[in-house]
Amino acid sequence: MKNSGKILPVAGIKLASVSAGIKKSGDDDLVVFEFDETSVCAATFTQNAFCAAPVTLAKKHLAQQSSTSLRALLINSGNANAGTGDTGLKNTLQTCQWLADELQCSAEQVLPFSTGVIGEQLPMAVFQQGIKKVVKKLSEDDWLPAAKGIMTTDTVAKAVSKTIALDGKQITLSGIAKGSGMICPNMATMLAFIATDADIDASFLQQCLSEAVAGSFNSITVDGDTSTNDACLLVATACASNKQVNAGSDDAKVFMQALDEICKQLAKAIIYDAEGATKFVTVDVRQTKTVAEARDVAYTIAHSPLVKTALFASDPNWGRILAAVGRAGLENLEISGVNIFLDDTCIVRSGGVDDDYTEDKGQAVMDQKEITIRVELGRGKESALLWTSDLSHEYVRINSEYRS
Amino acid sequence: MKNSGKILPVAGIKLASVSAGIKKSGDDDLVVFEFDETSVCAATFTQNAFCAAPVTLAKKHLAQQSSTSLRALLINSGNANAGTGDTGLKNTLQTCQWLADELQCSAEQVLPFSTGVIGEQLPMAVFQQGIKKVVKKLSEDDWLPAAKGIMTTDTVAKAVSKTIALDGKQITLSGIAKGSGMICPNMATMLAFIATDADIDASFLQQCLSEAVAGSFNSITVDGDTSTNDACLLVATACASNKQVNAGSDDAKVFMQALDEICKQLAKAIIYDAEGATKFVTVDVRQTKTVAEARDVAYTIAHSPLVKTALFASDPNWGRILAAVGRAGLENLEISGVNIFLDDTCIVRSGGVDDDYTEDKGQAVMDQKEITIRVELGRGKESALLWTSDLSHEYVRINSEYRS
Repeated sequence: MKNSGKILPVAGIKLASVSAGIKKSGDDDLVVFEFDETSVCAATFTQNAFCAAPVTLAKKHLAQQSSTSLRALLINSGNANAGTGDTGLKNTLQTCQWLADELQCSAEQVLPFSTGVIGEQLPMAVFQQGIKKVVKKLSEDDWLPAAKGIMTTDTVAKAVSKTIALDGKQITLSGIAKGSGMICPNMATMLAFIATDADIDASFLQQCLSEAVAGSFNSITVDGDTSTNDACLLVATACASNKQVNAGSDDAKVFMQALDEICKQLAKAIIYDAEGATKFVTVDVRQTKTVAEARDVAYTIAHSPLVKTALFASDPNWGRILAAVGRAGLENLEISGVNIFLDDTCIVRSGGVDDDYTEDKGQAVMDQKEITIRVELGRGKESALLWTSDLSHEYVRINSEYRS
Repeated sequence: MKNSGKILPVAGIKLASVSAGIKKSGDDDLVVFEFDETSVCAATFTQNAFCAAPVTLAKKHLAQQSSTSLRALLINSGNANAGTGDTGLKNTLQTCQWLADELQCSAEQVLPFSTGVIGEQLPMAVFQQGIKKVVKKLSEDDWLPAAKGIMTTDTVAKAVSKTIALDGKQITLSGIAKGSGMICPNMATMLAFIATDADIDASFLQQCLSEAVAGSFNSITVDGDTSTNDACLLVATACASNKQVNAGSDDAKVFMQALDEICKQLAKAIIYDAEGATKFVTVDVRQTKTVAEARDVAYTIAHSPLVKTALFASDPNWGRILAAVGRAGLENLEISGVNIFLDDTCIVRSGGVDDDYTEDKGQAVMDQKEITIRVELGRGKESALLWTSDLSHEYVRINSEYRS
């Protein structure tokens, strides 16, 4: 597998991005994907009980995909259309209908996605004009503009491509994602769109996505706040004319590995661009009885404001990591079995300060931009790995000035 | 009951505070309480699995109180003596012995408490000298100096007194507490010491403390980080010569109410002095199936960095509250049953924006220093109430510069 370094078009997909006027800044805020009729898709959505109107409608439209095929995505940034009640739902359906009219399909063949401020109704006139404008620009090459068009507090566009060989055919996978704050995905993350021209069995496609998401978008956190609008969509257009990929085949393994790498790269890109982040932190928890235990400990460390501010300060104040491990709620945790490392520097051995640890060693690791916190709990064979960011002045500035 | 407004001495208790040289700042850092032999005590401690050496030893000494009686507390600030292994435990016992030698009791009759930086051994020579110095100053009147002597990042001393009548006798309750960050107590909080001259049955005393702590110290959070050193101690000296108070009596009710008020006032004082706090926020969650559900939702709101930065910005960005409620993990939450209020202003009614809500109304509440977020979930009769603070630039500054 090679990573192309640029965003490759995917046969069977056209897309475009415009500034419709939803964002005050004048930046692009409306993106459309148009899919070939042969396309199938898989999706995961936020588990937030207050899911947004577009999430509700997208789920409903997806449930009808056995009879109709997915034809388009309508994505806006600048307004989340969450907490907007029945009016929000009706508005979303209307915007789908407007796009469907332009593309000569039905509203049910359009999936809507929104990201931005919660609690404001969509500006409908702006949408109506914007949709007319964006469909005129549809082309195979606009992946990078689309990645920019879905951004909110993101500072860089997140996009990645890979090519693999399946059944002797060159297959392309391309994906874009957005996300920088309100990031603690629960079975999905804030807007990731991935596509391939491969022919993939639809039910196997969902299995691939669910597995890839678990170790990527569902293993990152900025602030512990699960968004109301999270969604990850994977489309396979079947335009590459490969023999259809089904579960269990050699091609299935190749495809899953490529998809896994795409998802991990996009998920990590979100953390590199986390609001105010100055560090990229891997939290690697090992030797637990269950994966859930390992994730509990990893999230407790990753969400601790004290650990996050120490990381921001490049302060090897490892007592805060130890305190987070201790309050993670593991039953009968034997302190004497606990080791904690900053990269390869052991700070805590068997529950106490390691004999060879010095502040200088800890400082050397903390001064880096990328740091791994590894915790060994000595009570089992399971593990979990998360990626997170630090808590900086800039995080507070961004989130206290977000709407002003 | 009347609140005296100043800190009253408690018959049977002498105390003192000195600068021993544990803190670099030269502020007071060593406090001793000496108790009359008639005293009984109750205590709650941190549930953090990595509890500090003094917590481990204090629990052990308390377990021996049936045969010996508590005579003294030895409290230092500036060093938490946590994550210090066997050496930390031996050092703690040695400091207890030094104080016991001065007071002519046994080391087991001394309870040790520490607060400050985690992971550094106690400076033993400094302790030995400091203990000689502090015992010379013991007096009945030094409650306020003691409240100052246990401070770390606290900016104000936290102390409160009340008098009540029991059995025709005037009874005094006085208490001090410290805490400003790493505050999310779990069955106890960071160092609170409360005393009364009443004669109270020892087992009833523990019951009183546990109940009072649940609705006070265990209902506050600054940053979700449970300390390794949390402890709350309640001492009754029996010097007031009242008829011993036992469970179920009228006097028991009067005493419990007074203790409850003392604990709530000290707990709220910690939140008023939370690191970097500019707001005092009450989170009041109602109409849940269980108290645990209500607490889950309340803590999810109180720990959300996005809610906390919106509070700092006085931004009525209520979508962040709604998102927090939605991700709190309640099973089968019916959105249509959810109402959310800022003080008495309804922002969300039946899951959507209230028809009468305006940004101006939300802004008016947010501009206040004290704000109540009330959430009604329409699924039961239980409730929970927490106190918390906002997340400011100052919080990040304090915690990124803590050790420098």
